[in-house]
Amino acid sequence: MANVLTAKKEENIAEWYQQVCLKAELAEYATVKGCMVLRPNGYAIWDSIQKYFDENINKATGVRNAYFPLFIPESFFNREKEHAKGLKIEVAWLDKDVTGDGERLAVRPTSETIMYDSYSRWIRSYRDLPLKMNQWCNVVRWETEATKLFLRSREFLWQEGHCVYETKSECEKETLNYIQLYTKLCKELLALPVLTGKKTEKEKFAGADYTMTIESFMPDGKALQCGTSHLLSQNFAKAFNIKYLGKDEKEHTPFQNSWGLSTRLIGASVMTHSDNKGLVLPPRVAENKAIIIPVFIGDSKDKVAKKAKEIAHSLKEFNVILDDREEYNPGWKFTEWELKGIPLRIELGPKDLEKDQVVIVRRDTGVKTFVPLKDLKRKIEFELEAMHNDLYQKAEKFLKSSLAEAKDWKEFVKLTANKLVKVPFCGEKDCEDDIKAKTEGVTSRVIPFDDAVKKGSKCIHCGKEAKVNVYFSRAY
Amino acid sequence: MANVLTAKKEENIAEWYQQVCLKAELAEYATVKGCMVLRPNGYAIWDSIQKYFDENINKATGVRNAYFPLFIPESFFNREKEHAKGLKIEVAWLDKDVTGDGERLAVRPTSETIMYDSYSRWIRSYRDLPLKMNQWCNVVRWETEATKLFLRSREFLWQEGHCVYETKSECEKETLNYIQLYTKLCKELLALPVLTGKKTEKEKFAGADYTMTIESFMPDGKALQCGTSHLLSQNFAKAFNIKYLGKDEKEHTPFQNSWGLSTRLIGASVMTHSDNKGLVLPPRVAENKAIIIPVFIGDSKDKVAKKAKEIAHSLKEFNVILDDREEYNPGWKFTEWELKGIPLRIELGPKDLEKDQVVIVRRDTGVKTFVPLKDLKRKIEFELEAMHNDLYQKAEKFLKSSLAEAKDWKEFVKLTANKLVKVPFCGEKDCEDDIKAKTEGVTSRVIPFDDAVKKGSKCIHCGKEAKVNVYFSRAY
Repeated sequence: MANVLTAKKEENIAEWYQQVCLKAELAEYATVKGCMVLRPNGYAIWDSIQKYFDENINKATGVRNAYFPLFIPESFFNREKEHAKGLKIEVAWLDKDVTGDGERLAVRPTSETIMYDSYSRWIRSYRDLPLKMNQWCNVVRWETEATKLFLRSREFLWQEGHCVYETKSECEKETLNYIQLYTKLCKELLALPVLTGKKTEKEKFAGADYTMTIESFMPDGKALQCGTSHLLSQNFAKAFNIKYLGKDEKEHTPFQNSWGLSTRLIGASVMTHSDNKGLVLPPRVAENKAIIIPVFIGDSKDKVAKKAKEIAHSLKEFNVILDDREEYNPGWKFTEWELKGIPLRIELGPKDLEKDQVVIVRRDTGVKTFVPLKDLKRKIEFELEAMHNDLYQKAEKFLKSSLAEAKDWKEFVKLTANKLVKVPFCGEKDCEDDIKAKTEGVTSRVIPFDDAVKKGSKCIHCGKEAKVNVYFSRAY
Repeated sequence: MANVLTAKKEENIAEWYQQVCLKAELAEYATVKGCMVLRPNGYAIWDSIQKYFDENINKATGVRNAYFPLFIPESFFNREKEHAKGLKIEVAWLDKDVTGDGERLAVRPTSETIMYDSYSRWIRSYRDLPLKMNQWCNVVRWETEATKLFLRSREFLWQEGHCVYETKSECEKETLNYIQLYTKLCKELLALPVLTGKKTEKEKFAGADYTMTIESFMPDGKALQCGTSHLLSQNFAKAFNIKYLGKDEKEHTPFQNSWGLSTRLIGASVMTHSDNKGLVLPPRVAENKAIIIPVFIGDSKDKVAKKAKEIAHSLKEFNVILDDREEYNPGWKFTEWELKGIPLRIELGPKDLEKDQVVIVRRDTGVKTFVPLKDLKRKIEFELEAMHNDLYQKAEKFLKSSLAEAKDWKEFVKLTANKLVKVPFCGEKDCEDDIKAKTEGVTSRVIPFDDAVKKGSKCIHCGKEAKVNVYFSRAY
């Protein structure tokens, strides 16, 4: 059957995940290698993330949206040396026949350089600071690894925030604030718990002093980076000659951060919440909160159909769908809308009609409740809220149960098969390279906040003095 | 002075327009040749167009947003021959070092081909129709002519709607409906009157049976195309093998349209409404409907400042700005916010405080009104509405006064210097090429609806039998 998954989450999560994305019509592999199509069901989730973001992050912190060019001159990348080193390999360039005698143009992999070129003209005095901008756009990174819907593709959609401040302390405070707002977005909108903290030197953004991250943890024991916030400090400001005249009438170099999250977040939510029946949408991002399925039996058909329409009409605020198609039976419809992830199913049959009630079925638990029509709205609100909280708590329980600590290297190797393993670490890039090579893929995920390493601890791998506690795991 | 325009609209409109865009901080020329930066003040207008569009066009007609890849394989273009011919010259390609052995990839100039490749997999039966999708995205056309902010740049933002129907009549009806919805958007949101009708053979979209258009007319006597809707009929469906099983259980080829409008529309609005003091924003797209400027004189300063804050707080729904900076005097602020185009200025001085009133000044007319505080909200609503209507009527009067008819070729040449000139026309592409060459740039703009040519009329240029009445003019 086309509307049934043939793979199980607990047996073959990669295949299961792909089937959920494809069959719930969230996305499709494009004919262009490495790219994906965001279908309306998938785009609606992104739309809901954008709306939440514009309201609760941008507006709340005084950030304004703008749009900068897709093409970036090669020389811009080279101005900030670390940035250039870190990014160049993945960049897609335009054909020289197009650009003519001019310099090579990259398709943007991220926009620090082109934005800060403008910033250097716009910022003159302390009155222009803080400058807080964000753009919603597509970015391109010419990945060679296999494409995974939402998780890895050569083009993806994201937002990138770029702010400039007078002082380093203000800049640092806000760099932290944005990662905390991301954490909140994951919890409040997607019912997605994350670990929040810093990245190691090896994993930080090319050109940043440090990077903060939110990491979710998938059922197959791999972490998924969901958003980052970078303290760029004065690195780019110096490279792009951004200066301002202070209140002291002297020239100063300002401080910057940048922060981004992408359509990847959709993948994290899908993989976390969905089940073997298909997609489970966290209620707050669900475009349609409920599906109404009238059950037609014999004579009562017209009455049931009429009542179903009335109910659908009265529930407009939940953007409910009425599936009164006669060419499909109720069983097929139940399966279909479970696959598509609609949070609540409302059934109405002849007996319900007699009793002035409907049956509400929750997508995540399958629990049925008989609800008198007069209580319907209130009950829907209640169930949506309960479902959001339950999804979060279930995911949080899993995340907590996935945290581990390792006493020694042997245990570290064993546990990182499917856990987030906290260990003391020296912080050195070379040591981390070795860990990744020896374990065939284990990487540092996050240095948790407020969790200083015990004095005298040794690095789990090299045995040198440990500087930080770090969670390591396999990752997407 | 930095916040004053040095060019006049009636003397040098090109320089004036550029100054308005730059000094009102709507946009900036990017360092990358041919590209522009959409600054927050400009992006806010686009954001407001998007919101109106999603609500009043997409939702109202059952269109859903999606997102398709930026890169399009060369072979896709070649499938629809007319399309390939019409578009190829302007396409930017990726470097072959990036794509490797694969075929050449274009940066999308428009998305018919890549979308319909997906459509061919998604459409199976009449149950899948109509299929109605839209995407908001960036597109690239490698123009060689000089860049003009919002009006011509190598990359711009737009929406492209792409629908598929069972029957030609449904498809045609909707192709017309979308151009009418565009007309309504221009009027209701941007206070922008347009001429609506069909394009000639020469000016239609490459691959369409016909194209409908909305054309605005600028104060310098040039038309500006603001949006188009194309009847693609079965041309692309055949090329991309889109088929569906009908209710009759036979295979059919469906019918398609596509329709788009871009950030160009912002340019049309700016050029139409703005004046020698700077930007005039139509109230409905203005992010901030009013600016409050307290006038501080002597002792009363604290009281005035306090009251101004109270008023600002009470007017949150209008997203008012309070400019209580002390380092600038009121005169400078008046000039500054007039330049930025805020629809209403609210002044509050010591005398107003005594009388429990404020002064409201309209950006478009400069008319001052004393308003008792208790009436303020109602008066703001009234003035915003009046301003919208006045802007539209003024622009409509100008558009009507710019319409002309020509008796003969000599008059045609003379009038097309700065008018939209209606003439009988043979409809032939060659004849239109000749007209453009002889007049150094006059092009056909629109075949008005419901305005059939008189029997026996001759083409204004070649003298053959006229098939249609057409408006010709110079154009952006």
